[in-house]
Amino acid sequence: MGTTLKIALIKGDGIGIDVSDATVEVVDAALARAGAQPLEYDEIRAGAGCFAESGQDIEPDGEARAGAADAIFLGAIGLPSVRHADGTEISPHLRLRDRFGLYAGVRPVKAYPNAPQRLADPRAAGIDMVILRESTEGLFYSAAAHGRSDIRGDEEVRDTLRITRATTEKLHRFAFRLAEKRKERGKPGRVTCVDKANVFASMAFFRKIFDEIAPEFPHIPTGYQYVDAQALHLVRAPWEADVLVMENMFGDILSDLAGGLVGGMGMAACAEIGDETGLFQPAHGSAPDIIGQDKANPLAAVLSGALMLDYLAEKSNDASYARAATLIEGAVDAGFAANRLRPMEFGGDMGTRAMTDALLECVA
Amino acid sequence: MGTTLKIALIKGDGIGIDVSDATVEVVDAALARAGAQPLEYDEIRAGAGCFAESGQDIEPDGEARAGAADAIFLGAIGLPSVRHADGTEISPHLRLRDRFGLYAGVRPVKAYPNAPQRLADPRAAGIDMVILRESTEGLFYSAAAHGRSDIRGDEEVRDTLRITRATTEKLHRFAFRLAEKRKERGKPGRVTCVDKANVFASMAFFRKIFDEIAPEFPHIPTGYQYVDAQALHLVRAPWEADVLVMENMFGDILSDLAGGLVGGMGMAACAEIGDETGLFQPAHGSAPDIIGQDKANPLAAVLSGALMLDYLAEKSNDASYARAATLIEGAVDAGFAANRLRPMEFGGDMGTRAMTDALLECVA
Ligand SMILES: CC(C)[C@H](C(=O)O)[C@@H](O)C(=O)O
Ligand SMILES: CC(C)[C@H](C(=O)O)[C@@H](O)C(=O)O
Repeated sequence: MGTTLKIALIKGDGIGIDVSDATVEVVDAALARAGAQPLEYDEIRAGAGCFAESGQDIEPDGEARAGAADAIFLGAIGLPSVRHADGTEISPHLRLRDRFGLYAGVRPVKAYPNAPQRLADPRAAGIDMVILRESTEGLFYSAAAHGRSDIRGDEEVRDTLRITRATTEKLHRFAFRLAEKRKERGKPGRVTCVDKANVFASMAFFRKIFDEIAPEFPHIPTGYQYVDAQALHLVRAPWEADVLVMENMFGDILSDLAGGLVGGMGMAACAEIGDETGLFQPAHGSAPDIIGQDKANPLAAVLSGALMLDYLAEKSNDASYARAATLIEGAVDAGFAANRLRPMEFGGDMGTRAMTDALLECVA
Repeated sequence: MGTTLKIALIKGDGIGIDVSDATVEVVDAALARAGAQPLEYDEIRAGAGCFAESGQDIEPDGEARAGAADAIFLGAIGLPSVRHADGTEISPHLRLRDRFGLYAGVRPVKAYPNAPQRLADPRAAGIDMVILRESTEGLFYSAAAHGRSDIRGDEEVRDTLRITRATTEKLHRFAFRLAEKRKERGKPGRVTCVDKANVFASMAFFRKIFDEIAPEFPHIPTGYQYVDAQALHLVRAPWEADVLVMENMFGDILSDLAGGLVGGMGMAACAEIGDETGLFQPAHGSAPDIIGQDKANPLAAVLSGALMLDYLAEKSNDASYARAATLIEGAVDAGFAANRLRPMEFGGDMGTRAMTDALLECVA
């Protein structure tokens, strides 16, 4: 057996705590079942609650400890009542993306049987795509380091959308590798560059780099869409989308849109991968109004946990973590198919505890 | 009878020409039926074709003549083969928005019977909202005057998102007045500020100004949404949306998304209003592959023509133009209800000519 891998565990605020606890339970059970080495958790306090108490949005050595771990798991961050003077939120998460260069925001969107379907067309049951959201620059360049906006008195505020060659090359390569992996699993394995290259020089640059990288992967088909047309396409024929790669802000919007087609944020898993480490988190917020009420749907967090296990398998070259990930993903598939997962969020009768227990049973 | 009002008519490229011709026919018929003074048209050559021929994207005195008219009607602009060196499109339209301060981009989205519905929930038949897209600044600040991007060799490109108090105050007031008018017509009359105030100082500023303007309209209910959450909400419960006001790029994306729910770009009418003049155009592109083939759906253009007549009624204080607008809107309503409008775009049997004839019959 190899060395013990360490997870920096940031539960954060609100239901971030509930869903983190559920995820640790399910991940640990899957590891045991897969015969994998248990993980070690280093819990780090961070978020709006932490800021309100201490004036710091993360405990003093928190960032260093997060960086020293093999991966970071984050529940959810933010409390509506705790903000910067300009109204923006406390966001150690954005700073972690920046500090650790977590450029590749992976947001899978997949239809499950018995989970909500918004579209009338039965082909929507075949929705299975990944939105790859660049996560360190683009429009969020202004936000990563709070205070980078250009504020001109009370008359004007400017933010900057920044596209660099270095990050964009890595991002597009990541997209193509992801498409390769999906192809191996019997999915189309196609990459669409989503941009606004018709209007913005930054976006034309983004597409130009896409065209430079594509020939490195000659067996992967490519396509282009303007972001507005892609938004429309996602409500018309989302089953045609496979890997969509795009700028940070566009990815934020389109991943919520796509997630909304198949059940909403309660299913929205997310991995943010950099060269050295990865951060895994449900894409939903902290919903502080329902903390501790056993109402939160833990699925987005648990599926993010599975993405983390997949990442650890590659990082440590130990397939037992990948087996654990497959167990979790299979549990969600089977649980929905058998109608054993009925989250309150989707009008079902199961709170966080019941959902966690059902997942534990499916995993075992 | 008053003086003759003048329309600057920019048919543009591709099917822009087909749908402009259809619109002029329908508008003229509605004016005659409403007993309104006929309009005078000043046709101005502009677009990618014009650029390819002359090196200018609009004929020499074109902008001045557009400004001298009472309103501008634009078909569609752009040819994929004609572009700036950086890959962006020829865009006199963006420059017109900038030059004439056409800050209020009005994009109505309404479900019609027998037009495509994407959502399974029957309440989608009640979709009836307006997306108010600021149209001169925001992220498009970089694009309005081509060349405003910050290009750093082949390594980095930056674009700027600019929010000014002056424009934002006007925009929000426009949103509230629009809600008042909708209320008079029996619609909810509610304004939602859509932004990303949790992350960007520019967007927190946008929301702050919203909060300053709202008390001027105490009888109009307000709400907030982050743009990502709004995208999700639009696929979950779009029938709840009334007036949504937002930054330029956000409005571009969300108006296509919302339009996609009820039939796509073939229904996407658009008005862009400034202090002095207004520009009216279908929000779809020039689809040069089908120009002159009698395939284009003229409805988005014709509905934009109705928005233009409404604008002229207010501007000239002459209700006969408003009657003509109502005739056109009624013709589209009645035509769909009776299944007499069956555009090819929606799988129907009617090309541009047949659609135009059907509209003329309904108007008469
Ligand atoms: C909370 C916010 C900073 C965050 C983002 O916009 O990145 C969230 O919307 C997300 O998608 O992870
Ligand atoms: C063609 C393009 C410049 C334009 C825009 O983005 O404004 C179009 O998408 C629109 O929505 O009118």
